[in-house]
Amino acid sequence: MAPSPALAELSTLLGDRLVTSAADREAHGRNETHFPALPPEAVAYPETTEEVSRLVSICARHGLPVTGWGAGTSLEGHALALHGGVTVDFARMARVLEVRSEDMVARIQPGITREALNTELRATGLFFPVDPGANASLGGMASTRASGTTAVRYGTMRDNVLALEVVLADGRVIRTGTAARKSSAGYDLTGLFVGAEGTLGLITEITIRLHGQPEAVSAAVCAFPAMAPAVEAVIATIQSGIPMARIEFVDAATVAAFNQRDHAGMPEEPHLLVEFHGSPAAVAEQAERFGEIVAEAGGRGFQWADKAEDRARLWRMRHNAYYACLALRPGATAWVTDVCVPISRLAEAVEETRADIAAASIPGPILGHVGDGNFHAILLVDPGNEAEATEAKRLAARMADRALRLGGTVTGEHGIGMGKLDYMAREHGAGWEIMGDIKRALDPAGLMNPGKMVRGN
Amino acid sequence: MAPSPALAELSTLLGDRLVTSAADREAHGRNETHFPALPPEAVAYPETTEEVSRLVSICARHGLPVTGWGAGTSLEGHALALHGGVTVDFARMARVLEVRSEDMVARIQPGITREALNTELRATGLFFPVDPGANASLGGMASTRASGTTAVRYGTMRDNVLALEVVLADGRVIRTGTAARKSSAGYDLTGLFVGAEGTLGLITEITIRLHGQPEAVSAAVCAFPAMAPAVEAVIATIQSGIPMARIEFVDAATVAAFNQRDHAGMPEEPHLLVEFHGSPAAVAEQAERFGEIVAEAGGRGFQWADKAEDRARLWRMRHNAYYACLALRPGATAWVTDVCVPISRLAEAVEETRADIAAASIPGPILGHVGDGNFHAILLVDPGNEAEATEAKRLAARMADRALRLGGTVTGEHGIGMGKLDYMAREHGAGWEIMGDIKRALDPAGLMNPGKMVRGN
Repeated sequence: MAPSPALAELSTLLGDRLVTSAADREAHGRNETHFPALPPEAVAYPETTEEVSRLVSICARHGLPVTGWGAGTSLEGHALALHGGVTVDFARMARVLEVRSEDMVARIQPGITREALNTELRATGLFFPVDPGANASLGGMASTRASGTTAVRYGTMRDNVLALEVVLADGRVIRTGTAARKSSAGYDLTGLFVGAEGTLGLITEITIRLHGQPEAVSAAVCAFPAMAPAVEAVIATIQSGIPMARIEFVDAATVAAFNQRDHAGMPEEPHLLVEFHGSPAAVAEQAERFGEIVAEAGGRGFQWADKAEDRARLWRMRHNAYYACLALRPGATAWVTDVCVPISRLAEAVEETRADIAAASIPGPILGHVGDGNFHAILLVDPGNEAEATEAKRLAARMADRALRLGGTVTGEHGIGMGKLDYMAREHGAGWEIMGDIKRALDPAGLMNPGKMVRGN
Repeated sequence: MAPSPALAELSTLLGDRLVTSAADREAHGRNETHFPALPPEAVAYPETTEEVSRLVSICARHGLPVTGWGAGTSLEGHALALHGGVTVDFARMARVLEVRSEDMVARIQPGITREALNTELRATGLFFPVDPGANASLGGMASTRASGTTAVRYGTMRDNVLALEVVLADGRVIRTGTAARKSSAGYDLTGLFVGAEGTLGLITEITIRLHGQPEAVSAAVCAFPAMAPAVEAVIATIQSGIPMARIEFVDAATVAAFNQRDHAGMPEEPHLLVEFHGSPAAVAEQAERFGEIVAEAGGRGFQWADKAEDRARLWRMRHNAYYACLALRPGATAWVTDVCVPISRLAEAVEETRADIAAASIPGPILGHVGDGNFHAILLVDPGNEAEATEAKRLAARMADRALRLGGTVTGEHGIGMGKLDYMAREHGAGWEIMGDIKRALDPAGLMNPGKMVRGN
């Protein structure tokens, strides 16, 4: 097949960094969960903002869709080329451009991954705290407003992106925000592009906040007889002002997965996994006060991990919970849900979900970022089994309904992508129409990650 | 003069809560600084969101401008009726609607003031930390993305508004966000309306984050031989992870104003004013480590204010710095500037500003939120003196230029209003065009606080 005029122009721009091989297209049509493969017509590997701008201009002229690609770890199919076109892979724009230690900020390119970033920062005494578990790209994390285990202390991507460079749908390049820590100068465009999932433009540079590596770190696990007292302990801890760096909930089924895959040797009961950051004295005090709160709530079996290697093992296990759960049912595909509710409603949200899954035909361990009211069920489905897929869909829909009924959101951190579009009208009402107005104002031809976030593009 | 058909309709809607008396119109045409009086045609006092919606619909039908009004403490003339129309005063929508202690959030109406809010919260053990000094309304604080002395620890309004109810330009009512602590569900509309200065809609309800009242509080003042070592001490403190609750800089001229008005008895040198929040042990440790850093940087003359009444006196003095500075030159009007730069550039920004003012014909004490890189000069102008106004304008322009040159922003917390519109193109480049696109998408007739934020409406 002869290349289209658009692809020919892109090929002139990028040379062999425009790839149309079946292997590369298929690799960029795959996702981590249950969405069908949707390969683009070509994959572009730009190296500069100027190239991204010219690429987008060419696509705009020819009406070719443009979809950004980071590390491919999205769980809602955000980066799948629903309407074909070009997928822009930022693998060659993955550098740290500048670290400003005194300002505690860095300028980075969107393709760098979380782990590579922190490796580069190690010698500076600073680190980037947002940690979704997966080794995602920072551009992808910004675009989905990612968060994860440390958001309870350090915030989400919304809180840790200070400024952006963005290539708009017509190829113009804008800079939003500055390296100053705050501003009241106009509409918060930085906040608008963070979480926009590439539907308003492509992020080509990010100025992120850094944080001091904590002097002392202490982590622990403890067991609870049920979910409710664990949540009570978390609420009491937050209200007493103890600054937890992480506080994670895992249910008995997730612990069973840890035991099976990681030989964790934990009692198969609900657990909290916690971490404290600070000065040695502050961490010791926080740990002691947390221990008192847990004891009062009926928690038990505290195990402290004060050594770095023990902590690394603990959080590696937590980060790989998705794979541990998958291994509970070899060959299964996961539907990963993601709801977030006000903390006061978390215990009932989890308990209702638990009961729902217990009565269903498929397993679904539950775990979550309990300090934020955010939790996931990992619904394990036999890929060939239509009835199970229907069951997973029904359970996920009921979780989303429940989250809305309890005053929460259908996605705490994974984003909308292809999986949550059907809930946008219900969550936002007329606010979703406003999102559509903004989309049409910034991308009138509807070429930036089309088919996502809003309707009618 | 017979009322216009629009005002007649509004009068039917609101009865005697639509006021056209000269006194009330003039009171809503005044501002705290140097902008000329711009009274609206009428002042409306709605009591419900439904009334605001109907009011805005009537104005939309008749092409009448709508400008929101909180407590009138804005420093950039945001709430002045530049194109006439109706000013919507939220004085009768000033209630706390709900406090959810377990979730640490409250739903409030926009007219409530910061002090009234915290008085109502006192018994809950929670407080709302954002503190711009003035007893501003929360609706105004949200609309200008206000911050102040505590932002270094608790963040700005951007960080402390979780959800909004907004009446759009066509009268539709939307809800953005939820009481859940985070969400990845779509464009961040909450963040878009925070800081929009009423140009995209009127905020009719706010869900705010609350924080636990600190168990222990300690405050101190200390003197420095110059600005640079004070900033060095601040950078070192932030980098070492000491969580300051406030850290304020005042220059020698500001201290002179404190001495004159408040009999502060402080040496007339640059000072830092700090506060720590936490457990008694944590506060003691933070204070000790801060003392070491200050001593190393050449600071001296530490005075601790551990008693609540001493702290109250200290922060009252700081909050009234504006009035203390005004009293340095009886009868003067103030031009209050507001720039924010990356902290690494703060010392040079302040020193250059200091030198500029020293060489000018008018006085201008400098003070600021040094932990954020944000500072103000209070330029004191004889109101009848055209040459002095020109001088103030020149100094303010040079401060804004300097902030942009040093990678900062022309307003850290006061907003754009009427005073900073001329800098928008320079600070944002093509980003300002995008703001215009958003404005036209949400308010095509240009009736929401017209003449502000963007051009061409």
